[in-house]
Amino acid sequence: MTTPPKGSGPGPVSLEALFLGPQSENQEFFRSMLEFLIEEHVHWRRDFHPKDHPLLTPKEMRAPEFLATADRMREVLLDLSARLKSTSTPWFSTRYLGHMNSDTLMVSNLAQMAALLYNPNNVTYESSMATSPMEIECGQDFARLMGYDPRTAWGHITSDGTIANYEGLWLARNLKSFPAAAAEIAPELVEDRDPWALANLSIDRSLDLLDVAKRSNQLAEILRRSARGAGAGRFPLGKLLVSSTRHYSWEKAADLLGIGVEQVVRIPVTDRFRMDLNEFQEAVDRLVREKTPILGVVGVVGTTEEGAVDEIDGLVRLRDQYARRGIGFYLHVDAAYGGYGRALFLDSRGTFLPYERLRDAWGKGTERPGPESAVPSREVWAAYRAMSAADSITVDPHKMGYVPYSAGGIAIRDRRLLGLVSYSAAYVFDRDNPLDLNLGSVILEGSKAGATAAGVWAAHRVLPLNRDGYGRIIARTIEGTDHFIRTLRSMREFSAGGERIVCEPLLANPDYNIVCMAFNFKGNPSLARMNRLNEAIYHASSYESGPLYNDKWITSHTELERTIYGDAPRPFLDRLGIDPEEWARVGTVYVLRSVVMHPWLAHTSTYPEKWESYLSIMKGDIDTIVRGSKEVRPPRAGSAPGRRKG
Amino acid sequence: MTTPPKGSGPGPVSLEALFLGPQSENQEFFRSMLEFLIEEHVHWRRDFHPKDHPLLTPKEMRAPEFLATADRMREVLLDLSARLKSTSTPWFSTRYLGHMNSDTLMVSNLAQMAALLYNPNNVTYESSMATSPMEIECGQDFARLMGYDPRTAWGHITSDGTIANYEGLWLARNLKSFPAAAAEIAPELVEDRDPWALANLSIDRSLDLLDVAKRSNQLAEILRRSARGAGAGRFPLGKLLVSSTRHYSWEKAADLLGIGVEQVVRIPVTDRFRMDLNEFQEAVDRLVREKTPILGVVGVVGTTEEGAVDEIDGLVRLRDQYARRGIGFYLHVDAAYGGYGRALFLDSRGTFLPYERLRDAWGKGTERPGPESAVPSREVWAAYRAMSAADSITVDPHKMGYVPYSAGGIAIRDRRLLGLVSYSAAYVFDRDNPLDLNLGSVILEGSKAGATAAGVWAAHRVLPLNRDGYGRIIARTIEGTDHFIRTLRSMREFSAGGERIVCEPLLANPDYNIVCMAFNFKGNPSLARMNRLNEAIYHASSYESGPLYNDKWITSHTELERTIYGDAPRPFLDRLGIDPEEWARVGTVYVLRSVVMHPWLAHTSTYPEKWESYLSIMKGDIDTIVRGSKEVRPPRAGSAPGRRKG
Repeated sequence: MTTPPKGSGPGPVSLEALFLGPQSENQEFFRSMLEFLIEEHVHWRRDFHPKDHPLLTPKEMRAPEFLATADRMREVLLDLSARLKSTSTPWFSTRYLGHMNSDTLMVSNLAQMAALLYNPNNVTYESSMATSPMEIECGQDFARLMGYDPRTAWGHITSDGTIANYEGLWLARNLKSFPAAAAEIAPELVEDRDPWALANLSIDRSLDLLDVAKRSNQLAEILRRSARGAGAGRFPLGKLLVSSTRHYSWEKAADLLGIGVEQVVRIPVTDRFRMDLNEFQEAVDRLVREKTPILGVVGVVGTTEEGAVDEIDGLVRLRDQYARRGIGFYLHVDAAYGGYGRALFLDSRGTFLPYERLRDAWGKGTERPGPESAVPSREVWAAYRAMSAADSITVDPHKMGYVPYSAGGIAIRDRRLLGLVSYSAAYVFDRDNPLDLNLGSVILEGSKAGATAAGVWAAHRVLPLNRDGYGRIIARTIEGTDHFIRTLRSMREFSAGGERIVCEPLLANPDYNIVCMAFNFKGNPSLARMNRLNEAIYHASSYESGPLYNDKWITSHTELERTIYGDAPRPFLDRLGIDPEEWARVGTVYVLRSVVMHPWLAHTSTYPEKWESYLSIMKGDIDTIVRGSKEVRPPRAGSAPGRRKG
Repeated sequence: MTTPPKGSGPGPVSLEALFLGPQSENQEFFRSMLEFLIEEHVHWRRDFHPKDHPLLTPKEMRAPEFLATADRMREVLLDLSARLKSTSTPWFSTRYLGHMNSDTLMVSNLAQMAALLYNPNNVTYESSMATSPMEIECGQDFARLMGYDPRTAWGHITSDGTIANYEGLWLARNLKSFPAAAAEIAPELVEDRDPWALANLSIDRSLDLLDVAKRSNQLAEILRRSARGAGAGRFPLGKLLVSSTRHYSWEKAADLLGIGVEQVVRIPVTDRFRMDLNEFQEAVDRLVREKTPILGVVGVVGTTEEGAVDEIDGLVRLRDQYARRGIGFYLHVDAAYGGYGRALFLDSRGTFLPYERLRDAWGKGTERPGPESAVPSREVWAAYRAMSAADSITVDPHKMGYVPYSAGGIAIRDRRLLGLVSYSAAYVFDRDNPLDLNLGSVILEGSKAGATAAGVWAAHRVLPLNRDGYGRIIARTIEGTDHFIRTLRSMREFSAGGERIVCEPLLANPDYNIVCMAFNFKGNPSLARMNRLNEAIYHASSYESGPLYNDKWITSHTELERTIYGDAPRPFLDRLGIDPEEWARVGTVYVLRSVVMHPWLAHTSTYPEKWESYLSIMKGDIDTIVRGSKEVRPPRAGSAPGRRKG
């Protein structure tokens, strides 16, 4: 077995070489590699006992039944291809700036296609001797990316981020009930702690307790009395604290795991759309006063709608403070979207850069240095740095990992946690044991495609998870975001359909690479009228107005509701001329949302032109809309697709 | 959009044309279709605003950085291909008769590869306008396959059968707590039922209650008090009854869903390895006497180890009898393996054939009629027929659907059940509403590959889920199984290494297409010695003895333990000369296990020869083993892989 290139080879990666490209520019590489990989597989089959009789003779292959079956397969595949072509979203195009999608890495597509033919199943090592080790290796990549110690941490690939969130909560839930169950079986292990102290044992102490129980052969019996054995209702699990803008999968998670949706406490956000830590602290204090335990808190790195990065450093600080006061809870970070972004801050040895070095080195080593305005803020840097202190982290390769659907992932700081959910021998999760390759017995899922692991693995081997690899792509998307916003702000006011139109980004300097924005008629104080304008723009530039293939640009949208966002959007509305009373009355603002995932929207020879043409297309559409109806009508009833459910 | 061929076209399907083949016999079709599909995609990109500037110029594509990146991708892909070739299991070969694997359908591989390039995400319709409708269509296929009314039933594709089992249990759990929660909010809806009656309301009555609550706008409030809102511990959920040979994912399910592993009650099996219905009835009666509710029962159609088919008709009868006596519980069928087998019994209009017609028509319309000994027993037929009365059913396309990993599925008899787990408006699940295309809000998973749906859809369009399509493949695997067993029994006794060796199948007429068997030294009464012999045979014919590519045949194994199987293996042991005391003393029997999934092991021109050579290879291996050590030594320590975790 050859050693894979670790991506630390000579010279920087060419981002343009990584993708098939918006006009299939790299089709020659793609086709020739695919042909080679198919050839490899075909001969792998031929070479296995080549003297065996073939399945059928050439004559049999000319029989009418045989040919009719081939015709039928061809007919179905043509139909499939026609359907894909006529309705798929052109994610690959720089004209698409909507959801968390762009082109995906050629190497990952090719790896998946090749592995698909061998059809490995990563549920057990026996069924996937090539791809199980790749999944374990990707898990170690995730762990290193998050700043965990790969000797004691663990990670793996999930079918998506929702499943990774479930896994994090499963670990938290089973651990939360462990001390109280231990007190029943082995009171000597928990000294004379009362039920409140047991329900509030810190994560590290709970894990130590797990260790002791294992050594004294009491683990199995304790687990039988804990949530795992006796159900989620056996001991009070307490509340799960999440930001009010959380992904709806957290409610699903609380439902699925038998915790109950009503146990989810929503913490308001600041005007940066991050969890408000004062509000968090107040919520914790209130729960402590009420003697309600806290199961855990979820910090989000890269919210779905605004790309906001919660202050993980603040959450870690508070978590540690409370733990010292005897109030322990679990900290999970949902970095499904933002997780790969941590590569921005890691040098080739995996060291997290000091802020000054990050700023000084920004864009160095590329054709032209990136603008200082694009450098992540010190707050974002600090949040990313602190992720290494979280108990578990969700990260989705099919988002900022640029691999095809569906591939999520999870990293776990201390793999002793696996003892709480495993269906294999407990000693496997001792810190000094090699990692188990039989994944099915320690994860939520069962059978799982080894091809997915091959796709993620190949991407990681080409692009290391640091500044030389993924960091380079992601830096460019952040520069593209910065450029987008600066171009937007520079045009600010323009004419369309005989009206003066203004435009504002939700934030002048978002935490990551999502731009939310709204247009308004200059001087219009009506939020309802402004909402109708933006709704009409979205309608014209999305699948709602017919086949996307005819669209000149494509965006997505979101609605910020006052019941969820509180007054966070007020500064934005102020700039658009909407006053606080109007906001309180209408209670929702419709914004256009562009995720800037294409890495070549900055630093390529044609990018200024791209932005210019993008903006002029937008203006043209708005002109048509305003001209068509001075009092803009809402789009046809029943077509509103609601919030993105990704 | 063209209408897909429904597979009811002229003439029967040629099974040999469907697969790439053990020696890549159909490589021309595969390559030319793949090339066409790639071409389609390449030009789809080119044709979207073709006048846009290309990403980079030919000159830029000759830059050293560009070429170095291409080299790196090539290097990684070569490494991947080398790893896949050197360690993958040759599922495609008829020399592989181990786990639930064989070749997969070319049309499904090609459809997945094509769809992968468009990268749809079936979480919302917006992200997968081509493949979301395909998933819904496959869900309807599953529903029809199971005999459900597609107007009121529902189904979808899951990432695997484990997830489908979780979904079934999630529905059962949330429904079980609903009546008691309703009594708190709207006592008028449940009349004056006491808590015991509420905990035992039948499934149909509970669903009617859900309907009434929806109409009176009390659904949301009731759900908040039920397991969904208030956690799994709010009301007693009761026990989950499964056969003692169940897949371990059922324990994981009880853990994950907050029910508790200890709530799983294991029902012993008969000597046919099916759930013993007398034992089931006794368990139910005992629980009722103890005033413990019954959450549900899981019937298995195609157990992982023996392919046994539980008597679903008996379970349905008992479920209905108990419901009439006021003891209601949920019935889920885990047909992950056996589900597609229902196609054996359906004519082209979807009618379930009477037993006599099935028997008379067996193998008719093929080159030569199948042997009567292969016709499924009346018991198996009755079990399959009764599946239409189950509340939900797991079925895995990546098993007997012959599609690549990973694709599971679930069918739900009454889609009002979705109201219990949905995160979209409740009216969507009214019987007379069109099916929701935004899957993420009604299923366990979030983002999910549309490519998987394309793969399953294409397979179903080529092979209808009835006797003309999948039924033909599956009938052949059953005939292959029958032939395997008859050939085994005809050789019964032979010489190897100077010893007389006997061989016995676990069952002379298994329910489906799995053959378990064991060899013994003639006259040897020691179970330990017999186990060592079979362990050594497995060792020589599996990945344990080195690269599989060098193996002449490949099998799998399982161990039947007395703590799980009771005395079910006794007739088998009797035939091998092992007496009951020895069985009681040793408590485990090691058997070789061959899943016969290749459809061309019966009815092809070369099949008798294949079986002959298979048996002579086995004999040769055994000869070497016995010769090598008269007292067979166990294989190297630490290599036992344990039970299959699929």
